[in-house]
Amino acid sequence: MSLRTISIRNLFRQKKVFHFTPCIIQSQKQYEDRYSNRSWKNENISVGLLASLILGTQLTENNDNENKQNESELHQQAGAKRPDLPTYRAEEVSQHNNERSFWVTYKQGVYDVTSFLPSHPGGEQIYNAAGLSVEPFWNVYGMHKTKEIYELLESYRIGNLHEDDLVDHSDEEMWAKEPFRDKRLCVKTARPFNAETPPAEQVRHFDTPAELFYVRQHMPVPDLDGSCHRLTVLVEGEGERRLQLSVDELNRFKRQEVRAALMCAGNRRSEMNLVKPVKGLSWRTGAIGNAVWGGVLLRDVLLAAGVSDKDTEGKHVTLMGADMDATGTYFSTSIPLSHALDERARVLLATSMNGAPLTKDHGHPLRVVVPGAPAVRSVKWLQCIKVSSEESPSHWHQRDYRSFGPSVSWETADFPSAPPVYSLPVTSAVCSPEDGDTVRPRRGALHVQGYAYSGGGAKIIRVEVSTDRGATWREARLRSDSAPPREHYSWTLWDVDLPAAGPQMEIWVKATDSNFNAQPENFRDIWNIRGILSNAYHKIKVNVEQ
Amino acid sequence: MSLRTISIRNLFRQKKVFHFTPCIIQSQKQYEDRYSNRSWKNENISVGLLASLILGTQLTENNDNENKQNESELHQQAGAKRPDLPTYRAEEVSQHNNERSFWVTYKQGVYDVTSFLPSHPGGEQIYNAAGLSVEPFWNVYGMHKTKEIYELLESYRIGNLHEDDLVDHSDEEMWAKEPFRDKRLCVKTARPFNAETPPAEQVRHFDTPAELFYVRQHMPVPDLDGSCHRLTVLVEGEGERRLQLSVDELNRFKRQEVRAALMCAGNRRSEMNLVKPVKGLSWRTGAIGNAVWGGVLLRDVLLAAGVSDKDTEGKHVTLMGADMDATGTYFSTSIPLSHALDERARVLLATSMNGAPLTKDHGHPLRVVVPGAPAVRSVKWLQCIKVSSEESPSHWHQRDYRSFGPSVSWETADFPSAPPVYSLPVTSAVCSPEDGDTVRPRRGALHVQGYAYSGGGAKIIRVEVSTDRGATWREARLRSDSAPPREHYSWTLWDVDLPAAGPQMEIWVKATDSNFNAQPENFRDIWNIRGILSNAYHKIKVNVEQ
Repeated sequence: MSLRTISIRNLFRQKKVFHFTPCIIQSQKQYEDRYSNRSWKNENISVGLLASLILGTQLTENNDNENKQNESELHQQAGAKRPDLPTYRAEEVSQHNNERSFWVTYKQGVYDVTSFLPSHPGGEQIYNAAGLSVEPFWNVYGMHKTKEIYELLESYRIGNLHEDDLVDHSDEEMWAKEPFRDKRLCVKTARPFNAETPPAEQVRHFDTPAELFYVRQHMPVPDLDGSCHRLTVLVEGEGERRLQLSVDELNRFKRQEVRAALMCAGNRRSEMNLVKPVKGLSWRTGAIGNAVWGGVLLRDVLLAAGVSDKDTEGKHVTLMGADMDATGTYFSTSIPLSHALDERARVLLATSMNGAPLTKDHGHPLRVVVPGAPAVRSVKWLQCIKVSSEESPSHWHQRDYRSFGPSVSWETADFPSAPPVYSLPVTSAVCSPEDGDTVRPRRGALHVQGYAYSGGGAKIIRVEVSTDRGATWREARLRSDSAPPREHYSWTLWDVDLPAAGPQMEIWVKATDSNFNAQPENFRDIWNIRGILSNAYHKIKVNVEQ
Repeated sequence: MSLRTISIRNLFRQKKVFHFTPCIIQSQKQYEDRYSNRSWKNENISVGLLASLILGTQLTENNDNENKQNESELHQQAGAKRPDLPTYRAEEVSQHNNERSFWVTYKQGVYDVTSFLPSHPGGEQIYNAAGLSVEPFWNVYGMHKTKEIYELLESYRIGNLHEDDLVDHSDEEMWAKEPFRDKRLCVKTARPFNAETPPAEQVRHFDTPAELFYVRQHMPVPDLDGSCHRLTVLVEGEGERRLQLSVDELNRFKRQEVRAALMCAGNRRSEMNLVKPVKGLSWRTGAIGNAVWGGVLLRDVLLAAGVSDKDTEGKHVTLMGADMDATGTYFSTSIPLSHALDERARVLLATSMNGAPLTKDHGHPLRVVVPGAPAVRSVKWLQCIKVSSEESPSHWHQRDYRSFGPSVSWETADFPSAPPVYSLPVTSAVCSPEDGDTVRPRRGALHVQGYAYSGGGAKIIRVEVSTDRGATWREARLRSDSAPPREHYSWTLWDVDLPAAGPQMEIWVKATDSNFNAQPENFRDIWNIRGILSNAYHKIKVNVEQ
């Protein structure tokens, strides 16, 4: 995915369609002030380096032109390709994101700066760049752009970043407000930020902590102020109606809580990709999390706006976020009005996640949660709702998240006639151990854990695990939410003890839901060009310690 | 399935549980009167046979004891096993049910009486026994029980009925009121009557005509009088409430129509049976039909009876029919109260089918229709509804229609903990041509038709057909009801033209529903002891005329 370079002015220019002003962003100044107290507090630093850093800072402040020239020359040398060194994919780099192994990139350079960590003048700030490029941070904190620091950086050089993973950091300001991310997340792409929950963390919590919840962004994260944010509700048709609500006003509707998993339609795409390449982020099994969402029913808000629940046929609810792409288009998608008004569908306008206000990455201050639907419908940073006879015209809605059969190619795909994905099929995954792990049995058995989930309100009624390629199956213990089957939006965690049979074991898992749909065994017959709805059996191999 | 012999008095003895009197049956006299005008009108009959028949009748009327003695001796000879003749299964016999080939059975004897048809003194009455045993009819029309007729019968002898298909006809009176059935139905068992819609008839009508709708009875068909039938609604708990409603009173609630398929949970069991034997009627693909059901919402009736839709957790609605087993227990099953009250679930108390009053085989005068659920929940001849904190205690509910995994055996099955089946997974079938047919291509193509269906309100969004064992798939044209996806209870008919590639073609079909669940390819991993929910790809082979 590549984003065209745009200016921050362009990014946040007002849209004319809905005639309202998003209250989006603090100034660059506010942002820098916020961090100023936290910088330079680490004293474990060499005098020489400190001097050079201070010098660098002074240069930046006092002689901008001269610095730009120096920087330009150095810029061309640092991070250039070194044919003598190995090449790494961004995903591999992203895994070196902790104090035991800490890699960063700069242009095409890959650097192992683990040993430098204690010396960083900015202290923990450096963790923002763990496994990522330092460029966006250095663009904000220009004091890094000195000959000495470029030379220091190159002394840690270990390799080259794969050319497909190079990102244009020339307009960094649009990314400057990205929130701090937990380093345990498995980063797929840094910009926009897309990251999985580590498998072991998935099964450790029935409700995934916000900081470990997988993140799927299409664009930079908007920086919204909850106290001045407004939601516009527009009902098209005869007697067009408009409603504007602050978050406080919204919260005067009846408060509701819904425990619901959110899963990206592309979760487990990497497995489908093995059958035949598909387009999209190569999610493993980590693009799903579970949480208790708090807010008000979209139904209640729509009824208050004068929408009739007797006249839903052919009508849709378009949901628009405050995240904007390079062409100046806000993210949007839609769901059928009948779905939005269905009391049992429990579509929420949510302001809290697991009892705390939404974090920036998860839609602060207001998002939609469409339980049982692919997470793309759960629009974050919600700023406008429109009821009309049209589905969302956005390309996210019209050209993505639609269902195709296995014989449809990019050449033959007819997007307008393909069904939009508003629900999710039954799926499951082994989270612990992970594929390729070496496991030590306890009392002759492997303890195996994972999740299972089905969309549309279906509950998981059975999870079965096989170690003989499906000849026999063993039922797993299930841990579920108590919601009734047709309103069951939460995932199910499962675990099972499998008799150890080494040296290598192949473990298959499949789930059955309350509609008695089971997963297909193979990906071949559900393969699709976008690699979504990738729900065949999860199959892993582990080594067993003898 | 074998029914213990019971008397009609026993069959219709009153149940104490619900303290009400079912208005069930006309007297034997009424029944015989009804048919008396229609008998003996065929004049194409030999004088000798007519004489013997009259004689037989006279003997029956005038000298009952003597007749019984003769009958007893003849009884022992006629229909006895003849080792010199081949053995036939009841299912094969049942296919010889028309004037081109007309077989009947008597005890263990199989008879081809095609050439006798024009001579039958009772005229068309004989068609009631087409492909079936004559015993129940002869028990009612005792004039048949003469030496001459037994001898005549044996002259048509062609074989023996398989021992597993022998039925005890010694208490025939309980079956005397069975309705007339269309001879195009494919009979699986005569008593209770279970029969499939012929595949070609399934795809010929979007709404299956009542007379061609598959029939699944557990017991003899009750003979209810709609004008005096009463429905009792009992709400247990604090302030127990009871409501009694005539069918006319019931019809004063708001009238509703729901187009819904009803499918037996065991549809397509015969295919699962090939993997490993299962218990149950060996349904092929014909245990499903589609109809427009008219009636009132169960929800409306329950609300009128004082049921609260805010207090549904752990509550169930038991639905009791007027059909009774040999132990004197009425048929009953239950559904969760939340399901019954869900407006979008559209659970009906139905009095009409395709615009006409319900027929006897389909629940006259009142039945339940639980759209999207296995048809067993759509209780026929409904006489009582009970809201309580218990599921139905009947063995049909407790010991059947529950879901097990493939590794559960009859020895390890734990019925109380197994999930009751309240919904159905996505399925599909080829109806035309049928497996083994020889097909003549038109303009180089085979026209292939079938149905697809998914439970729980899911709509079929795609049907795909493969002639290369899944390497490539071709999308079929779909014909669907216009109900929205989450309330889509109708089946979908499909058709596709496949390039002829002879001399033999293997045709696979699979469907995907609006939750994006697809059928599993094979039965192995969904196999279960009861052979229900048998929804893997349907695979047939046809011969292509060159």
